[in-house]
Amino acid sequence: MTYQFNTMNDRRGTNCSKWDVLESKFDVPSEDGLAMWTADSDYPTAPCVLKALQDAVDHGVFGYWTDNSEYHKAIQWWMKSRHGWDIDTDWILTCQGLGNAIALCLDVWSAPGDRIVTFNPVYHEFEFKIRKAGRVPVQCPLKRDGDTYDLDLDTAQDMLDGTEKMLIFCSPQNPSGRVWSREELKQVAEFCARNDLLLISDEIHHDFIYPGHTFVPMDVAAPQIRDRLVVLTAASKTFNIAGQKTGNMIIPDDDLRAAMAQRLRSLDYSPNALGLKMVTAAYSPEGADWVDAQIAHLMENKAIFDEGVNAIPGVRSLPLQSTYLAWVDFSGTGMDFEEISRRVRKDARIAPSPGPEFGPGGETFLRFNLATQKARVVEAVHRLQTAFADLQ
Amino acid sequence: MTYQFNTMNDRRGTNCSKWDVLESKFDVPSEDGLAMWTADSDYPTAPCVLKALQDAVDHGVFGYWTDNSEYHKAIQWWMKSRHGWDIDTDWILTCQGLGNAIALCLDVWSAPGDRIVTFNPVYHEFEFKIRKAGRVPVQCPLKRDGDTYDLDLDTAQDMLDGTEKMLIFCSPQNPSGRVWSREELKQVAEFCARNDLLLISDEIHHDFIYPGHTFVPMDVAAPQIRDRLVVLTAASKTFNIAGQKTGNMIIPDDDLRAAMAQRLRSLDYSPNALGLKMVTAAYSPEGADWVDAQIAHLMENKAIFDEGVNAIPGVRSLPLQSTYLAWVDFSGTGMDFEEISRRVRKDARIAPSPGPEFGPGGETFLRFNLATQKARVVEAVHRLQTAFADLQ
Ligand SMILES: Cc1ncc(COP(=O)(O)O)c(C=O)c1O
Ligand SMILES: Cc1ncc(COP(=O)(O)O)c(C=O)c1O
Repeated sequence: MTYQFNTMNDRRGTNCSKWDVLESKFDVPSEDGLAMWTADSDYPTAPCVLKALQDAVDHGVFGYWTDNSEYHKAIQWWMKSRHGWDIDTDWILTCQGLGNAIALCLDVWSAPGDRIVTFNPVYHEFEFKIRKAGRVPVQCPLKRDGDTYDLDLDTAQDMLDGTEKMLIFCSPQNPSGRVWSREELKQVAEFCARNDLLLISDEIHHDFIYPGHTFVPMDVAAPQIRDRLVVLTAASKTFNIAGQKTGNMIIPDDDLRAAMAQRLRSLDYSPNALGLKMVTAAYSPEGADWVDAQIAHLMENKAIFDEGVNAIPGVRSLPLQSTYLAWVDFSGTGMDFEEISRRVRKDARIAPSPGPEFGPGGETFLRFNLATQKARVVEAVHRLQTAFADLQ
Repeated sequence: MTYQFNTMNDRRGTNCSKWDVLESKFDVPSEDGLAMWTADSDYPTAPCVLKALQDAVDHGVFGYWTDNSEYHKAIQWWMKSRHGWDIDTDWILTCQGLGNAIALCLDVWSAPGDRIVTFNPVYHEFEFKIRKAGRVPVQCPLKRDGDTYDLDLDTAQDMLDGTEKMLIFCSPQNPSGRVWSREELKQVAEFCARNDLLLISDEIHHDFIYPGHTFVPMDVAAPQIRDRLVVLTAASKTFNIAGQKTGNMIIPDDDLRAAMAQRLRSLDYSPNALGLKMVTAAYSPEGADWVDAQIAHLMENKAIFDEGVNAIPGVRSLPLQSTYLAWVDFSGTGMDFEEISRRVRKDARIAPSPGPEFGPGGETFLRFNLATQKARVVEAVHRLQTAFADLQ
């Protein structure tokens, strides 16, 4: 089966967050700018997902939904077959995506003013969600180790004052792409147990794992801390359906789950029917085949991007173990961030995510989204090489 | 343009709440049972909505959404052109449907244990939502007046103890179908002002108004109480897209709106893209044309149903001013509710909504959903007449 990863398309004018705000948000011209920031993909979702949606259009009736059992079974099958993770279907609570899931966890298990731990650089919205809910971020550093990052639990330990309520952890990690080992995950779990922290493990990027690396779900690595574990997963990155706002909180512990279920009930949560249909169709053998092809596509894009960008003196794209988000260090150029940013936006006409948003450690970085057509990656490389040609 | 209101279809096996739980919830056989309970329609949504969805399928990319301005403008246009209501687009806050909106209002403007007022019989979920949130329902009666209902604000006043926080009001009213007059709405507004109650005006059924009646939005009838008014609207009943969980809280008052907006932000609410697309397409001249045709269709169904059911001695279908939900009083049969219910479910093989769920005043009623194909209404009448043939 061949897929549409390289078919050129135009997302402008489709209420598309990534492409429709190039000028307003990035000052990059809309006509020929390249949107490489927010984490969605430019190519269409899997044919099996489109088929499910087409069936719904053909039926034409969009009334009240019942019975999540197929949806639950599809999730269970996916976690088992793709990640070797056995889950009970009744561990699954569904919400409006993982930003919403994080906000709900903060709402249920912390109070305004509480300190919430993250390991940075990390997905910038962790900090934004913590602040929006009136909680206080405690941004502990990861340790940069050449081309990769390590945990730095000693420094983190020193930064805690004993009142922290929760760690929001990203596994695999956005933006560095780190796939944490079983041993590292155990250390994180012990850190949480030692400091009496709830562990929110955001595993949204778990389906993008490159050869040589193995993703281990937190619940598999450290089942002994289930009484403090909430795992967040979604098909939204994997299948490019983030707009449908459908995500899951997988909570093995009965008491934790009951607390969240009660909150969802009191807020009268019910997921949207098309989101459920799309995810059910996605988490299938056909969907798995498409994801495998997507990973092969991303590896090609990654190879082109890394080779081209690393040829610019002083610029380093860290080798990704996971995710489609290239994490590029410009510190070797000796330029300040403003100049780097200016060249990328104004000269190269590219809108990547600014590294400083990801917190301490991101100061000299830009994050480039490679989930696009190969031609766009080639063009981006060309433009970046030109914008920094004086360094050659 | 001809529409598909009478094209027979089968909703069984489509995760359809209304048809897929006939046996499990109502003990009505699934093969030839008739589902006439929950408030969605059996016919497809408007062609303009399907067209918007088809465009989305053809585009195939379902990433992050931006820019609600078209969505907001469509709502503004609809309220003005259909209801003579001028709203600012920035009064609109979007949530996951109106059950969720009610839960959010309870969450923001009341605390566990607080007393919340309703006028019964009324949409049963008001009570359920109040209880799920740990609040206490104060169910004040409407006054039955022959074939219709009147407000009974004196009795309501006597039932309050002065600690109540909120009135959840249904306009037009489900299940009685009452379209409240401007004068009645003013009295309700004054009642709220007098008792310092927030007024949640659930206007979800406002598009189904039958000739001879005029719907007046609460904000038009009583703009002087805007500082305590939250209006709930949705395209979900009107266009049969309830599964997409997209509803609006229209809040003219800046302070009230800021409080709700802050709660939505802290919970990281964002509506689903396909829901927004569908509503935007629905609230259009093409959508209005379809709604007019739907009302003509419902009037036919209503005439057939009322004539047939009122021919059964002791049974009275109250003449609807609004909604597609026939409110049928079986008290004249002299039978107890269990026997009425048994005959309707077991003999007629019909699943309507049980009147007692709607609270005080609903004891002898069943509510029949007429938003279906004419043939199904004809069949329902025939079965009901047969089930109660001994009364002839
Ligand atoms: C780690 C991580 N968590 C959560 C999200 C957002 O999830 P959602 O779109 O479901 O709100 C993202 C999106 O980039 C992410 O990278
Ligand atoms: C008066 C009223 N409000 C709210 C709802 C439910 O709205 P939603 O489907 O958006 O939760 C209904 C559905 O029957 C209703 O009749």
